[in-house]
Amino acid sequence: MRRAAFFVSDSTGITAQTLGNALLANFPGVQFVRRTLPFVEGGRGAAQVVRALERAQAAGLAPVVFTTVKDPAVLAALAAAPGDRIDLLGGHLTELEQVLDTTASEQLGQFHTLGDTTAYFARMRAVEFAIEHDDGQSTRALDQAEVIIVAPSRCGKTPTTMYLALQHGVLVANYPLTDDDFPTDGLPPLVAPYAGRCFGVTTTPLRLSQVRHERRPSSRYASLAQCTLELRRAEQLYQRNRIPFVNSSTKSVEEMSAVILQSLELRRERLSGDESP
Amino acid sequence: MRRAAFFVSDSTGITAQTLGNALLANFPGVQFVRRTLPFVEGGRGAAQVVRALERAQAAGLAPVVFTTVKDPAVLAALAAAPGDRIDLLGGHLTELEQVLDTTASEQLGQFHTLGDTTAYFARMRAVEFAIEHDDGQSTRALDQAEVIIVAPSRCGKTPTTMYLALQHGVLVANYPLTDDDFPTDGLPPLVAPYAGRCFGVTTTPLRLSQVRHERRPSSRYASLAQCTLELRRAEQLYQRNRIPFVNSSTKSVEEMSAVILQSLELRRERLSGDESP
Repeated sequence: MRRAAFFVSDSTGITAQTLGNALLANFPGVQFVRRTLPFVEGGRGAAQVVRALERAQAAGLAPVVFTTVKDPAVLAALAAAPGDRIDLLGGHLTELEQVLDTTASEQLGQFHTLGDTTAYFARMRAVEFAIEHDDGQSTRALDQAEVIIVAPSRCGKTPTTMYLALQHGVLVANYPLTDDDFPTDGLPPLVAPYAGRCFGVTTTPLRLSQVRHERRPSSRYASLAQCTLELRRAEQLYQRNRIPFVNSSTKSVEEMSAVILQSLELRRERLSGDESP
Repeated sequence: MRRAAFFVSDSTGITAQTLGNALLANFPGVQFVRRTLPFVEGGRGAAQVVRALERAQAAGLAPVVFTTVKDPAVLAALAAAPGDRIDLLGGHLTELEQVLDTTASEQLGQFHTLGDTTAYFARMRAVEFAIEHDDGQSTRALDQAEVIIVAPSRCGKTPTTMYLALQHGVLVANYPLTDDDFPTDGLPPLVAPYAGRCFGVTTTPLRLSQVRHERRPSSRYASLAQCTLELRRAEQLYQRNRIPFVNSSTKSVEEMSAVILQSLELRRERLSGDESP
């Protein structure tokens, strides 16, 4: 079965996409052709959506429409168009009004906009910090970082670093483990003072070798033997120094970031007494 | 009024956070102390959540719990704990089962996991591409890029580049406009062959001057006069060459990315005839 899945929003569409896709993941037997329609406003916006739904219907792809639109006029236009609608916001807003014993603001919810500019600019600064110190070994960066991701080259440090910076405003540095870092059992001297902020990444030797071959084909650096050796030494280093670590061959960037954030929150809690809920 | 807001998930918590925060944005009069509890599984996971809810309740922060958990045992434990629950998944899954005329998979929805590895590795490659070619002027990068973000230095090219790469797997290059690029009305020669892929960014002179002062205090580069001049010339360049552009002082990275994706989709549609829904 093939269906069109539309994510319709008066803002970026990120919320509709995120929950919509999470829901669709529960129906692996259906093939969905996805399309996001952001910034849908007023009569003209509604008319464009209706046309897109009609085209999909005519092409034999009956639409499922996930919407976070609040404007009643747009919702009415969608109700008259082809397709099944799932309103991701309305019902929950009513639930929340009861739970919080107050009415929802008439205005658009300002999520994914500049909104809280302090938090926003902290995220933007964190992205800069991550890029400037990517794979760098500057002591200053390590000193300022809240999290230091440690791993052999090409294990997947960088995308996780970027995700934590961009989505959560965490100051993340990363430190590549090289052959020179393994003669002793201790952490590399530059990193050692910050062991409590370190997080290791590992992967499988085969996967690492494949990724390294893309960069330097047929090199010793990319050989299965070298990859096996570096990963074994890295894991020993993590274990001996009680550095928590994750495997990037079985976990996505989002999952690794969630694991890292969880341990960062626990540390913040310990540092601040028991302030957080 | 202060409340605790918990985002409880058996996976990363991203879906619960995203929709939960979008909903909370509609209640600006309530102050929420937020906490994400990811990877909640089995009796032990449920017990930890219940303890966190009890602590919040005892601290005078009555919890609102946004959950995407599917496990009935965990849901039952939450139902017996303090706080109000908003089930973000269950109701919509039932709606979707009716709409799609099929039952949801018993398994966990595999969203935000490695899942579709082809799409995942495309995103990871896009992050590498973005970092390697950030602020670069390599012709090869421009040739491969699907989107080229063009703007004077410090207008906010980089975070948007990263967001498009990391979240959407788009190959994005960015090109800094310098004084040298303004003697003529045309696009800079390196960029000119790719005008159809270009996207401009502008901001306000005051904001640009502030950001530049952080980098090079009291420089000519950071002066309000220089910033005003560069932004005026950049906007003229965009307009004369029909390059769409956005203002980073009023739009978030998420909003700018949504605008850019929208125009990218339209272009893909034009290129492919009318294949998409």
